[in-house]
Amino acid sequence: MKKTALLYMLLIAAFLAYAARHAYVNSAGEGSFRSEELRGELGENYVMVTFLSGIEYWKSCLKGFEDAAEALNVSIEYRGATQYDAREQITVLEQIIAKKPAGIAISAIDPSSLTGVIDKAVDAGIPVVVFDSGAPGSKAYSFLGTDNYAAGATAADQMAELLGGQGKVAVITLPSQQNHDERTRGFRDTIEKRHPDIKVVAVEDDKGDAMAAKELTKSLLKRYPDLAGVFVTEAAGGKGAGEAAKELKREEKLRVIAFDTDKDTLDMIREGSISAAIAQGTWNMGYWSLQYLFHLHHDLTIPSPAASGDVSPLPVGVDTGISVVTPENVDDYYAK
Amino acid sequence: MKKTALLYMLLIAAFLAYAARHAYVNSAGEGSFRSEELRGELGENYVMVTFLSGIEYWKSCLKGFEDAAEALNVSIEYRGATQYDAREQITVLEQIIAKKPAGIAISAIDPSSLTGVIDKAVDAGIPVVVFDSGAPGSKAYSFLGTDNYAAGATAADQMAELLGGQGKVAVITLPSQQNHDERTRGFRDTIEKRHPDIKVVAVEDDKGDAMAAKELTKSLLKRYPDLAGVFVTEAAGGKGAGEAAKELKREEKLRVIAFDTDKDTLDMIREGSISAAIAQGTWNMGYWSLQYLFHLHHDLTIPSPAASGDVSPLPVGVDTGISVVTPENVDDYYAK
Repeated sequence: MKKTALLYMLLIAAFLAYAARHAYVNSAGEGSFRSEELRGELGENYVMVTFLSGIEYWKSCLKGFEDAAEALNVSIEYRGATQYDAREQITVLEQIIAKKPAGIAISAIDPSSLTGVIDKAVDAGIPVVVFDSGAPGSKAYSFLGTDNYAAGATAADQMAELLGGQGKVAVITLPSQQNHDERTRGFRDTIEKRHPDIKVVAVEDDKGDAMAAKELTKSLLKRYPDLAGVFVTEAAGGKGAGEAAKELKREEKLRVIAFDTDKDTLDMIREGSISAAIAQGTWNMGYWSLQYLFHLHHDLTIPSPAASGDVSPLPVGVDTGISVVTPENVDDYYAK
Repeated sequence: MKKTALLYMLLIAAFLAYAARHAYVNSAGEGSFRSEELRGELGENYVMVTFLSGIEYWKSCLKGFEDAAEALNVSIEYRGATQYDAREQITVLEQIIAKKPAGIAISAIDPSSLTGVIDKAVDAGIPVVVFDSGAPGSKAYSFLGTDNYAAGATAADQMAELLGGQGKVAVITLPSQQNHDERTRGFRDTIEKRHPDIKVVAVEDDKGDAMAAKELTKSLLKRYPDLAGVFVTEAAGGKGAGEAAKELKREEKLRVIAFDTDKDTLDMIREGSISAAIAQGTWNMGYWSLQYLFHLHHDLTIPSPAASGDVSPLPVGVDTGISVVTPENVDDYYAK
C-alpha cells in the first residue's frame, strides 16, 4: 500500500511538471507572433539538393542540415545531380517539387539555369533557400554562403604573412564562375592596398582541373623563377599546384594557398606541399538553411508588411564565414 | 473510489506522455552535435542594448528579440544609453556584464568606442552579437544588419521609377557615419550605372537634424529650381525634406525618398509629402540575434575546428534585408 502511494505521488509530480510546462507555453502564446515550440511534426520532410552530389565538399553542409533536423525534430533527405549537369539538377528538383516537401535548400549549379524551377517551387508554396552557390534572380527567400571577396582578402593577408610581405605571386582560378572571380578580386585588391611589396604577376585559368593547375604552376615557375606564392581559388587546383611544387622540390620556396578542405588538401598541408587553405562555413550553410526553411514552413517569420510585398520575410543574405587551415590546426579539420 | 481511479489513470497517461517525450529527445541525442530541444532553462536571461534607447526605431528590433525569447522559452531584458553618448553606453554594458547574462545583443553607437567593453564580455564567456550598427574590430561573434550599399541602390531604382528615369536629384546624409556613407555610395553608383539621364547634383550634410534638412532642401530648390528628387539617408531628415516640399507646395514635383518607418514618416507618405521610404529588417535583427546568442550559450554551434581558431562558430554577417514603403503598402507598416 505504501509503494502504491509513492507511485501515485511520483505520478502526480510528473503530471504537475508536465502541466506547468504547457501552461507556460500557453501563456507565452499571445501577440501577433505565432509562438510555438521549435519542434516539427510527424512527416515533416526537408530536402537538400546539390550537384556533383558525391563529392566530399557537401558532407559538412549535410551534417549541419542533419544537426538542425535533430534539434527541430524533423526529417531530411539528400538529393542531387550526380554530374556537373544543369539539366540533371533541374530534373531532380522537378521530382522533389512533385512530392511537396516542407522545404528545399539548394546549391545552384550556376547563377541562372535553376531560376525557373526554383520559382516554380516557391509559387507552389514550398519554401526554398539557396546555399553555397547562388541563384540571385530567383524567388528563393535567402542565400547562405561565403563572402568570396572577403575570402580572397583573407587569402591575400595569409600570403603576405607567409612571404614576409614581399615577392611575386600568381592566382590560378576559374574566371567563368562568379564566386571564383570574386575571390580573385578580393585577393588582388588586398595585395594592392595592404601589401605594396607583393606583386600579382599572373592570373591563370585551370578550368577546375588539378592536372591543368599542375602544368600551369610548372610553366609559371619557368616564366618567373622567383615566384614565391600561388593562390588557387578552387578545390581541385590547389592539389595540382602543390604537386608541381613537390615534383620540382620547391615546397620550401613556393607557398601554395588552396581553397576548401577535402582530405587530399589536408594531407598536403600536413606534409608541407600546401601552406594553407581557406575553409568555408559549410556546417553553418546547412544548419541555418534548415532553420530558415523551418521558420518559413511554420510561419514563424514576421507577418505583414513583409508578407504583402516582394520582400523576403527572412534575412536575404548570410555570410557563413571562413577560417584559415594551417599546419598548426590542420588536424582539427579531418572528418571525425 | 471510481473518481480516484479515473484521476490515477489520467495521471498515468500524463506521465507516459511526459516520459515518451523525454525518451525521444534522448534517442536523438547521439553524434557530435549536442542535440537538445531548442528550449531554454529557468533564469536564462538575454539582454538587448541600444543607444537613444527611447526612440521608436528599436521597437521592432525588440519585438523580434521578444518573439525569439517566446519561441525559445527564455527571458530577456532591454537596456541602453538614453542619450547619444558612448560613455553612457559603455557604463550600461559594464553593469550588464557584471550580472553575467546568458548573452548580449548590442547596437554600437559608433564603430570603435565599444570594442574594449564588448571584448571584455566575450573574454568573460558571455556570447555577444552586434546588430544594426556594427563594431567591426570587436570580438563579437556576428553582425546582423542592413546591407547599406544595397539599400542605397534600391533607393536609386525607386527614385528612377518615380522620376520616369530622368531629372536632377540630391542626397541629404550624415557623411560622418559609415552606414550613411554606404547608402550614399550605393545610390550614386546605381544612378550612374543604371540611370544615365538622372544627375546627382548635390550631396549635403544635415547632421541628423530635421530642421537642417528642411533648410537644406529649401536652399537646394533655390539653386536647382528643377530639382526633381531628394534621397535622405537618415530618419530625421526625411521629414524635414518632406516639410520643405509641403511648405513650398512642391509635393507634386519634388520626390522625397526617406529612410526608416517612424510614425511621422508613414503619415507623410500617406499624405504625399514623402514618396517612399526604405524600411529595414529590424524584426529580423532582433529575432536572429537572440537565436544566435541562444545557440552560443547552449553550445549548439559546430564544435572544432571553429572552436580552436580565431573563427566565429556562427555566420559572421547577416543581411537582414529591406523593403520599400509606398502609398500603396504604407498601412501595413503602422505598429499594430
